[in-house]
Amino acid sequence: MSYFPQQRSLSGDLGLALQFVFQKALRSLGSEEQIARWDPLCNKLQILATYAQTELGHGTYLQGLETEATYDAATQEFVVHSPTLTAIKWWPGDLGRSATHALVQAQLICSGAQQGMHAFIVPIRSLEDHSPLPGITVGDIGPKMDFDHSDNGFLQLDHVRIPRENMLSRFAQVLPDGTYIKLGTAKSNYLSMVVVRVDMLSNEVIPLLQKACVIAIRYSVIRHQSRLRPSDPEVKVLDYQTQQQKLFPPLAKAYAFHFVAKSLLEFFHRSYSSILDRDFRLLPELHALSAGMKALVSDFCVQGAELCRRACGGHGYSKLSGLPSLVTRVTASCTYEGENTVLYLQTARFLVKSYLQAQESTSQRSLPQSVAYLTAPDLAKCPAQNVADFLHPELYTTAWAHVAARLIKDSVHHLQTLMQSGADRHEAWNQTTVIHLQAAKAHLYYVTVKIFTEALEKLENQPAIQQVLKRLCDLYALHGIMTNTGDFLHDGFLSGAQIDVARKAYLDLLLLIRKDAVLLTDAFDFTDQCLNSALGCYDGNVYERLFQWAQRSPTNTQGNPAYEKYIRPLLQGWRSRL
Amino acid sequence: MSYFPQQRSLSGDLGLALQFVFQKALRSLGSEEQIARWDPLCNKLQILATYAQTELGHGTYLQGLETEATYDAATQEFVVHSPTLTAIKWWPGDLGRSATHALVQAQLICSGAQQGMHAFIVPIRSLEDHSPLPGITVGDIGPKMDFDHSDNGFLQLDHVRIPRENMLSRFAQVLPDGTYIKLGTAKSNYLSMVVVRVDMLSNEVIPLLQKACVIAIRYSVIRHQSRLRPSDPEVKVLDYQTQQQKLFPPLAKAYAFHFVAKSLLEFFHRSYSSILDRDFRLLPELHALSAGMKALVSDFCVQGAELCRRACGGHGYSKLSGLPSLVTRVTASCTYEGENTVLYLQTARFLVKSYLQAQESTSQRSLPQSVAYLTAPDLAKCPAQNVADFLHPELYTTAWAHVAARLIKDSVHHLQTLMQSGADRHEAWNQTTVIHLQAAKAHLYYVTVKIFTEALEKLENQPAIQQVLKRLCDLYALHGIMTNTGDFLHDGFLSGAQIDVARKAYLDLLLLIRKDAVLLTDAFDFTDQCLNSALGCYDGNVYERLFQWAQRSPTNTQGNPAYEKYIRPLLQGWRSRL
Repeated sequence: MSYFPQQRSLSGDLGLALQFVFQKALRSLGSEEQIARWDPLCNKLQILATYAQTELGHGTYLQGLETEATYDAATQEFVVHSPTLTAIKWWPGDLGRSATHALVQAQLICSGAQQGMHAFIVPIRSLEDHSPLPGITVGDIGPKMDFDHSDNGFLQLDHVRIPRENMLSRFAQVLPDGTYIKLGTAKSNYLSMVVVRVDMLSNEVIPLLQKACVIAIRYSVIRHQSRLRPSDPEVKVLDYQTQQQKLFPPLAKAYAFHFVAKSLLEFFHRSYSSILDRDFRLLPELHALSAGMKALVSDFCVQGAELCRRACGGHGYSKLSGLPSLVTRVTASCTYEGENTVLYLQTARFLVKSYLQAQESTSQRSLPQSVAYLTAPDLAKCPAQNVADFLHPELYTTAWAHVAARLIKDSVHHLQTLMQSGADRHEAWNQTTVIHLQAAKAHLYYVTVKIFTEALEKLENQPAIQQVLKRLCDLYALHGIMTNTGDFLHDGFLSGAQIDVARKAYLDLLLLIRKDAVLLTDAFDFTDQCLNSALGCYDGNVYERLFQWAQRSPTNTQGNPAYEKYIRPLLQGWRSRL
Repeated sequence: MSYFPQQRSLSGDLGLALQFVFQKALRSLGSEEQIARWDPLCNKLQILATYAQTELGHGTYLQGLETEATYDAATQEFVVHSPTLTAIKWWPGDLGRSATHALVQAQLICSGAQQGMHAFIVPIRSLEDHSPLPGITVGDIGPKMDFDHSDNGFLQLDHVRIPRENMLSRFAQVLPDGTYIKLGTAKSNYLSMVVVRVDMLSNEVIPLLQKACVIAIRYSVIRHQSRLRPSDPEVKVLDYQTQQQKLFPPLAKAYAFHFVAKSLLEFFHRSYSSILDRDFRLLPELHALSAGMKALVSDFCVQGAELCRRACGGHGYSKLSGLPSLVTRVTASCTYEGENTVLYLQTARFLVKSYLQAQESTSQRSLPQSVAYLTAPDLAKCPAQNVADFLHPELYTTAWAHVAARLIKDSVHHLQTLMQSGADRHEAWNQTTVIHLQAAKAHLYYVTVKIFTEALEKLENQPAIQQVLKRLCDLYALHGIMTNTGDFLHDGFLSGAQIDVARKAYLDLLLLIRKDAVLLTDAFDFTDQCLNSALGCYDGNVYERLFQWAQRSPTNTQGNPAYEKYIRPLLQGWRSRL
């Protein structure tokens, strides 16, 4: 298969990765002059840059950031300052021990007025001797769950002065006299976050799930446990239905998300250049879709990688399996670049608006593509009667559209009911967020199913590949139904009897996928070196490798200092007391 | 509150914890003479012992272990041997660098016949100089996801001879001439595992969830983010419905499982002494209940602890929060002492047998207590009409019993249908395990709801405490319904409209619990030192502590060797090329 040629050294293992985030933000938010000046310095590694947004007391909520950049017209400089302890920048990669420059998100104050968040290039360390520049306190934030190799830092700014030209000014400018000129919308500053979120899925998050699938599935055909029949030899654990149920849905997701990330990237490229040219019509949909997909994909990748790890039993807990580190790293992606709950709710806000727009019969504007199903004809009951019916992409795509539309309608209804009963808009929103979350997740699942089915259609010329991938697509859609049966039963769209038929279809698929499972993971084309796992090597020599690798551990090759110090006195103490 | 006095240093932080596992196994499986001989040696720390069951190639499935103990009547010794690479004992705590003795589970071979698994005391290291004894290869298995402080080892045995008296012989004996005498059932060897599973819930697993709840809930009243209204100050994140939805179900579980563990322990004590006296009537239920509860409780504790960690955003990923280590440690409990899927299926087998027994109208035996509901009268439809109805313990206990009984019936039906269509018993079992899993989980959830409601009833004399805990019990039961709506809708027991009413009841509870949330975590009575968390201290000085602790990190107090070696040449290299 040709989908994954040479995924040799992916998934964020690079040092100085924040240089790229800085550059992406620069190219999105900077003027042409600023890009021309700073981008080459990054490319030639003449500066080492980072992106400093989150603060000790503030995360995903951009408007809550406390760092200030006050314009001083007398000197044509910005004074960048951390007014409180909680304003200290916290978490930026490469900041604590390496970076020379930071792109600092700060509240712009000019001519006495607050103008909201803007991005400023702040030199933080001397290019001569790397010492912190005047007014800068910088350091490492301490140990983390993973990313031990990367440096995450804090940055406290004490009235640090930078030239006026250091504010990125594609969408807003401060003139020498302090006049503020806005060239974009209030949301244009989100663009740098959109860029990073779209990018991180294919380059960081999804490969971690793919690797976990490779390791767990390869191991599951080497590991034998228990007998199906007393007279048989022990069977490969991958032949157990429960093991298939653990591993094949994550495998299906690893493929589904490959196509999702590709599709999102294509949409991004279609809209990005017009946004840079200050045509913001596609920004709301791009923002809602990229935020929600970042949340959905990272949530499922974490869940899937952990399922893979646990499916390897005790050995999955050993670092020699490579799995603990995959899990703890992918787990971080639920939080960085936007906490997932916050992101789902941003999608939910877009859905509420889209739903209300769809209700306005006078509206001349057509709905954004990803929510066009809100005005499509809908069935009250699913027509599926047998297993084969549930294997039609059109059937399950329609089923997901039905559920998503119903849940969105339900969420808007609850919101409006609360407001009509006297709650103000904000309180009503807060008291319905659990319902909005559910709606947003269903919508996003629908979108992923739709993208996967569309990708399948394009494989007409490769029928063998199409057939194998269709099973994964079917499994992906049906697994989603199986884990959310209540949503499909709630209004009688599916009956209990139909759910049982869908479950039969789902369980039958597990057996079919079993045959191709190992090849489907080989197709990701990760090298043994890149997997770095005693369980997941291509040759299957799991036990030999575990035993060899364990013996090389420093705990075995060096002495046990605890013996002389503690164990010997303990064991021999009783004799001296005789 | 007086439930959790002084939980000062719980949750498995002790070194040499395997000494206790060895002793528990000894007291369960050993004869009175063996206990009298070995127990005092452990108590006085004259030996350091471990329990060696799992092997490199074999885990939870006891019968699959390869290690052999062959009786040699000529010398009245057992020859203990690892015949293959996969037979190497792997994972036992304290084995790799510390233990002097191991209780080895091995296949007994005497008079030419295999007699199944038995436990043997094998000296492995010299009491003089700690060197491995002849025939012993022993070492550490390398780095793990957590438990860095504990030593987990491997043990390869090359025809190691031990005296006949070293086979634990409460339930089976080998006479000097090699005659094998069985005094228990085939399952009596499980007793040592039952003991450990019952014990680990209260002493290791549940306190980890409780600690995570304390940290996350305390932090959530210090952390402010975003505004409910544009004119308001930023609000405490615990006032967000989505944050309550993350944190209060785990809190409810932390309380529910306290009562579950207590109840399980009481049942264990009622049955243990009769089992030691070789009355095995209660063993099947004790085995099924302790296996299943170990699985359910550890699964939910992992899920809850991870929810708590993620609810703390970026800071939850910092080790300074204390949460990463709580999560990675509790995660291990899904695998050690029996992999959870295997354990659920052991409960499922018991449920199938109980269901068939309930169907036999001629059966004179009454059903075991935990499955008595299988013969109780059942309703076809839930009578609840309003929010208050859903807050009756009897109503939701009955609802859970209904769903559990239906799913057990469904699982037996599928099993029988497959067998009637020609599949053999083992194949039919394997092809229905996903369905059995679902049934076992519903049954176990029912049992936990029932235990929690019964514990509430006993609090009549403390109405204030009873009222607060009833909300948690209601939330526990309703959260279970909300996350499994499909199971309640499937046969029309609940309608979609009733689900919406239950959701209203559930969401209202979140607001009520909000008021007591911090006090409910204070009641666990963990000291700051024991929590070891910058986020979870009693005084709430989160940000000051994070900043202080970070500054003390070796990455800040020592220099950055990477600067001289890599960064300076990189940054200054371009100048020399000018």
